[in-house]
Amino acid sequence: MIRLYDYELSGSCYKVRLLLNMLSLDYEKVAIDFVGAEHKSNDFLALNPLGELPLLDDSGLLIRDAQTILVYLATQYDVTHTLYPVDAASQSQVLQWLAIAGNELMSVSGARLAKSLHYPLDIEQLQEKAKRIFVLLDRHLGQHEYLALEHLTIADIACFPYSVLANEAGIDISGYKHLITWIERIKSAPNFIGMPGVK
Amino acid sequence: MIRLYDYELSGSCYKVRLLLNMLSLDYEKVAIDFVGAEHKSNDFLALNPLGELPLLDDSGLLIRDAQTILVYLATQYDVTHTLYPVDAASQSQVLQWLAIAGNELMSVSGARLAKSLHYPLDIEQLQEKAKRIFVLLDRHLGQHEYLALEHLTIADIACFPYSVLANEAGIDISGYKHLITWIERIKSAPNFIGMPGVK
Repeated sequence: MIRLYDYELSGSCYKVRLLLNMLSLDYEKVAIDFVGAEHKSNDFLALNPLGELPLLDDSGLLIRDAQTILVYLATQYDVTHTLYPVDAASQSQVLQWLAIAGNELMSVSGARLAKSLHYPLDIEQLQEKAKRIFVLLDRHLGQHEYLALEHLTIADIACFPYSVLANEAGIDISGYKHLITWIERIKSAPNFIGMPGVK
Repeated sequence: MIRLYDYELSGSCYKVRLLLNMLSLDYEKVAIDFVGAEHKSNDFLALNPLGELPLLDDSGLLIRDAQTILVYLATQYDVTHTLYPVDAASQSQVLQWLAIAGNELMSVSGARLAKSLHYPLDIEQLQEKAKRIFVLLDRHLGQHEYLALEHLTIADIACFPYSVLANEAGIDISGYKHLITWIERIKSAPNFIGMPGVK
């Protein structure tokens, strides 16, 4: 049985819920009180010493880190092997975008937390870092329909949430036309689901 | 032919050189003048728009991000399939440590750059972040010989450089006994090579 330790408003949890839905997988959601810092409680730290969400439990196999969870789910459950192809060359093209999702794009998450939950972070510095990566994404998407390959992969799923949530981080992405087109393309994918703030 | 765009003193480049050597792969090294910001030149940005090292070119296939390169090389060239096993469960255990190598442990790199090249970064904040992850690594390595599985994987190769280079970032790791034992274990692996600062 698949269990997802989840916080509804987290973009990192959302990317996992989005993939689970696209794969039509049944799973149990365990709501973690992020605002109440339940992810830093001893009970949760025993499951994930990093104290971070999301966390996946697949029949006892614990997996932390959103990008790692996406690779695992696609490898294990995508019978079409399109969301994460099996050859090393294609996988490398997907993984290098997952690295951006887990690094540069997380500055959007930081800026959003600083705005909404008043985390003591340098919001302007985070916004600048995010803008640099949106410029790069927009330029890339001017020449490609999807980020890593010529079709939807977990690279798109990983980079989608904190692109579409940029406005909640005080970042205006309306000028990035190719990025906006790509966002609409993802939204029209089969079994797409949103989250609060993502229609 | 494999070509590595490389900077000798980069821990991120070193982890790729270490794996290439462990796999006994021939490759051409292209030295990039990091101090002279050659990685931000138009020529290099045409190859990697992120302007980051390392960058791998395998017969025309360009791959950025050190952790992505490790996965690619192990998948493509490790005929024993032990450094990065083929099953989804084992891969997930490896990948979640690669995420730490690409995130939390990079604070060691930041602190090291701040010290050696006077990058305008908050060195104390970076050192504190690094110490938190060393505490976690040390605790984990008190119960496991290797990070992800019961044998050496690219998780160990990815986390090794910025652990062993911690002293150059002004971080004293001598108190983390299990971490030190693991460092010595990696150093005794077949085909191990060092770098300046790593004997």
